[in-house]
Amino acid sequence: MNEDYPKIIENIYHSVLKGENLGKIPTYIPELGQVSDKKFGIFFQPLNGATFGIGDCNEKFSIQSIAKVLSTSLAYSILGDELWTRVDVEPSGTPFNSLVQLETDNGIPRNPLINAGAIVVCDILLSILKNPQEDFLNFIQNLANDSSVTYSERISESEKSVGYRNYALCYYIKSLGNLENNPTDVLDFYFKLCSIEMTCKTLSYTFSFLANDGMTLHQSERILSKSRTKRINAVMQTCGFYDESGEFAFRVGLPGKSGVGGGIVAVMPNHYSISVWSPKLNDKGNSYRGMKFLEDFTTQTRISIF
Amino acid sequence: MNEDYPKIIENIYHSVLKGENLGKIPTYIPELGQVSDKKFGIFFQPLNGATFGIGDCNEKFSIQSIAKVLSTSLAYSILGDELWTRVDVEPSGTPFNSLVQLETDNGIPRNPLINAGAIVVCDILLSILKNPQEDFLNFIQNLANDSSVTYSERISESEKSVGYRNYALCYYIKSLGNLENNPTDVLDFYFKLCSIEMTCKTLSYTFSFLANDGMTLHQSERILSKSRTKRINAVMQTCGFYDESGEFAFRVGLPGKSGVGGGIVAVMPNHYSISVWSPKLNDKGNSYRGMKFLEDFTTQTRISIF
Amino acid sequence: MNEDYPKIIENIYHSVLKGENLGKIPTYIPELGQVSDKKFGIFFQPLNGATFGIGDCNEKFSIQSIAKVLSTSLAYSILGDELWTRVDVEPSGTPFNSLVQLETDNGIPRNPLINAGAIVVCDILLSILKNPQEDFLNFIQNLANDSSVTYSERISESEKSVGYRNYALCYYIKSLGNLENNPTDVLDFYFKLCSIEMTCKTLSYTFSFLANDGMTLHQSERILSKSRTKRINAVMQTCGFYDESGEFAFRVGLPGKSGVGGGIVAVMPNHYSISVWSPKLNDKGNSYRGMKFLEDFTTQTRISIF
Amino acid sequence: MNEDYPKIIENIYHSVLKGENLGKIPTYIPELGQVSDKKFGIFFQPLNGATFGIGDCNEKFSIQSIAKVLSTSLAYSILGDELWTRVDVEPSGTPFNSLVQLETDNGIPRNPLINAGAIVVCDILLSILKNPQEDFLNFIQNLANDSSVTYSERISESEKSVGYRNYALCYYIKSLGNLENNPTDVLDFYFKLCSIEMTCKTLSYTFSFLANDGMTLHQSERILSKSRTKRINAVMQTCGFYDESGEFAFRVGLPGKSGVGGGIVAVMPNHYSISVWSPKLNDKGNSYRGMKFLEDFTTQTRISIF
Repeated sequence: MNEDYPKIIENIYHSVLKGENLGKIPTYIPELGQVSDKKFGIFFQPLNGATFGIGDCNEKFSIQSIAKVLSTSLAYSILGDELWTRVDVEPSGTPFNSLVQLETDNGIPRNPLINAGAIVVCDILLSILKNPQEDFLNFIQNLANDSSVTYSERISESEKSVGYRNYALCYYIKSLGNLENNPTDVLDFYFKLCSIEMTCKTLSYTFSFLANDGMTLHQSERILSKSRTKRINAVMQTCGFYDESGEFAFRVGLPGKSGVGGGIVAVMPNHYSISVWSPKLNDKGNSYRGMKFLEDFTTQTRISIF
Repeated sequence: MNEDYPKIIENIYHSVLKGENLGKIPTYIPELGQVSDKKFGIFFQPLNGATFGIGDCNEKFSIQSIAKVLSTSLAYSILGDELWTRVDVEPSGTPFNSLVQLETDNGIPRNPLINAGAIVVCDILLSILKNPQEDFLNFIQNLANDSSVTYSERISESEKSVGYRNYALCYYIKSLGNLENNPTDVLDFYFKLCSIEMTCKTLSYTFSFLANDGMTLHQSERILSKSRTKRINAVMQTCGFYDESGEFAFRVGLPGKSGVGGGIVAVMPNHYSISVWSPKLNDKGNSYRGMKFLEDFTTQTRISIF
Repeated sequence: MNEDYPKIIENIYHSVLKGENLGKIPTYIPELGQVSDKKFGIFFQPLNGATFGIGDCNEKFSIQSIAKVLSTSLAYSILGDELWTRVDVEPSGTPFNSLVQLETDNGIPRNPLINAGAIVVCDILLSILKNPQEDFLNFIQNLANDSSVTYSERISESEKSVGYRNYALCYYIKSLGNLENNPTDVLDFYFKLCSIEMTCKTLSYTFSFLANDGMTLHQSERILSKSRTKRINAVMQTCGFYDESGEFAFRVGLPGKSGVGGGIVAVMPNHYSISVWSPKLNDKGNSYRGMKFLEDFTTQTRISIF
Repeated sequence: MNEDYPKIIENIYHSVLKGENLGKIPTYIPELGQVSDKKFGIFFQPLNGATFGIGDCNEKFSIQSIAKVLSTSLAYSILGDELWTRVDVEPSGTPFNSLVQLETDNGIPRNPLINAGAIVVCDILLSILKNPQEDFLNFIQNLANDSSVTYSERISESEKSVGYRNYALCYYIKSLGNLENNPTDVLDFYFKLCSIEMTCKTLSYTFSFLANDGMTLHQSERILSKSRTKRINAVMQTCGFYDESGEFAFRVGLPGKSGVGGGIVAVMPNHYSISVWSPKLNDKGNSYRGMKFLEDFTTQTRISIF
């Protein structure tokens, strides 16, 4: 473990903070639009050694689509490879909420991290979990080692009130035969899932099992086998940033996932997980400062998966 | 370096050889259709330690699209990031020869490893190299440390005689304003480039600079900076297998590139490069046995970038 | 008026009845699937001279999408050309329920006769009519000169229970900003509208105003100006048969509209309107025998708009 | 025959001339860009009664895509309905030079009046005519009753030098298996065909056979049967104005065809043919003043096919 990581993080944090804060806070979800665009936090969670946080790293924010990695992990841990008969693992090459590909792909979403795919994963969890919302929350609280992590009623209601595109996607998938449950039930769960709030600190810890061959750090509990952990990381790598996934691989070089709440979490297998939060998004829907920070971070540490 | 690599390779080689040999040899390029579908070779090139080859690893085959990583590397080494104004780094989500996305993307191909992107890279090299065909060959011979590597007139003429789709792509890009040179000149170069023949052994060695932070093994000559090497690997990872790129990342977990000649080369940064050759292709156009071997290989060695 | 029309109709009726009855009854709407595929009726309504009906021409059937011409006419008569800011008049070149074009056309449906366009017209009527369902029914009863024409609760509920694609379309248009009302309200109206039942006889009479320069036959009441009538006919001509509109123009040569209930109505301006009903649909969703009859009819009468 | 036609034409001519002259002359074909944008001519050719011309109706211009109706007519007259196995009769809903639909339609162009379809028709004529260029010219001269009608070497060379999109289309169709001849031969013929020059007077006369049930006026020579003439008119109606075909049907209500040279010809079956020429094109590629004139013309004469 490189001793200089905290120093490097601190330096980049200050330089990014001094630099431009381009992009904008999405206004289509009313509640998300109320966050201050000055927020900027980072939390570094190594597998071994001291953690390091800076800025607003202990303030909760809406992790949004980042939760899709966790729902996918849960479904994968239960269903195994049968999961991939309902959703594919290919980058989509299109925006996160596109309906077009579904028409040619017979309702099989390209991957579980675009909205269509996450909706199908929600449908799967609805079918296989006894108490879906509760069970999923327990799963996350266990990963986070923090029983205070929860859904935000306020955010999920806000998204539901304007989530027409997601309704369209969900009904479309239903019409193409790839949804077992009632669309409104699936969407209720989907909006709940996207409303989870965490701090950078909790988020980094929650994702550390993906850096740790599938095991939680606190209990060495196996969540996913090593091989399946690799696969989840691969899907994050190729699909985690919508139609900017190639750009993230190119500039940052780590598997990761972003959310429209301005959060990004990335994983360096066998080494660390790291989270950044800054609410202003570039035009692909990814945190402007988050991307900038992580690019500088992997460039200066000279460590990436490539 | 794991001492058991040769043993593992040998075991998987035999088990894959005993297993099914699905898929088919592409017949649309007459010359390629004449190769025996029984060919199967593997060559392992570690950065340190002994190399290991098995099967038809010393027989030349047409590397086809694999050469596109090399032309991109050469253009990147000369132009730097200006290269990415002409071609993007995003996975396409569509087959290798699709024209559709160009229409919406104003003639900027999604990445340099699909045909459209490789054509633009050829156009760039035509503009910046004095003797394009000769200079490019020298570049490859230097990487391969083998001056016998050359174009196959037979293959390039064969492809040219039926390469209507590539003509269509090239003229289309020209019509969209992203081609400086004459389409027929660009295609002449493109078909030459795709006709390069190598053995698995040479191919693994040629790509070892991408595992070695951008430097050749024999002379420690810097071809690309560490940071640019990372980026080329990232592009291979997300775009190297057309619309099966996610699948390759998912199953194998290494940056790599395939060609319709049945070759696949993959790179484990800081560790090794490895090539496989088996001519029968799955329906996405990637070597059936090549994919199978590499999946088993990273699963059994338990080493991948993820 | 050609004296031989009844004779010609009778002859073709018998020859089509003897011929093949290809295609199939759509099963995706449960209630529609219960109709006998042997039903075959025709009703000819000239502007001057005697009407003529044959076969099951006095049996009610679900006119389905045919009603979209009537809702468009009503909206046009109230809004005038402002209507065309919400929906275009171009053939779509795609199936009736496609979502793809909406994504590139910013939520403006290609024409009012595909599902997306008809949904937008329903939204418009919801906004401008006091009692939308009642007012629209009055409009149709007046055209039909028959106060018994009504919605089928059974059919509209049946369609609603499986109309996922239409829900998807409607929410999608909402997300793209081209819907004023609540999607579920719009769809309630839409499914009602599609559930109207008529006999061939009533249907031919209802559409006679489009052959009569926009005036009803019984009261000479002006529904649309001559110029607007021409435009509605033009839209039927270019868009009335989904992605078989060209084929219908080519083979039949009359403005017309089909419905998945197996009905087709066509109009020869200044001469007549004519309806056919036969439930088995070809793979474009248009009545097999209806198409066949009308092609033979315009071929043998040697009269079409071309 | 309405006695007032010349008067109406004259009035509209002057009013359009006084009005705006929006749009622009296409500059992508160098030679076409040199025409004065002030040109404006009209020629009216009734089946019975006196012809009437005004403005620049006796000046030659490049008829461009208008010639595609004639090549289709010639192919149809020789091949009969077999023609429609190579090209469809559906409106495309996309711009004239789109490649996208070909990918989903297996190389069968949507209709013979978009570029892709016209290229396939050229391929057909190359296969079935002894001396294609000569024979086609003879066919047109006969229709025009004017042996001075000819190709413009200057225009065809100019288009060829920049016709990259058409090269792309042609090679693409070849790659999809719907082209028998060599793409460059097909394109040579295609560019020749588009280079034909006529005056409004000649153009109206040339198309009069389509108003006259398929027979030339001067010799009553049958070019097409009544039924086939109807079908050509139907194709013009639904496909003659690219993705503005619906708009033309809606506003004008006649079968017609436009060319990027600024010409439009339209046909009122059993009554007349009429041509307009004004070089500035709207953003769909159709003559701005031509559209305006014809809309006013059918509105004021109150005669259209609808």
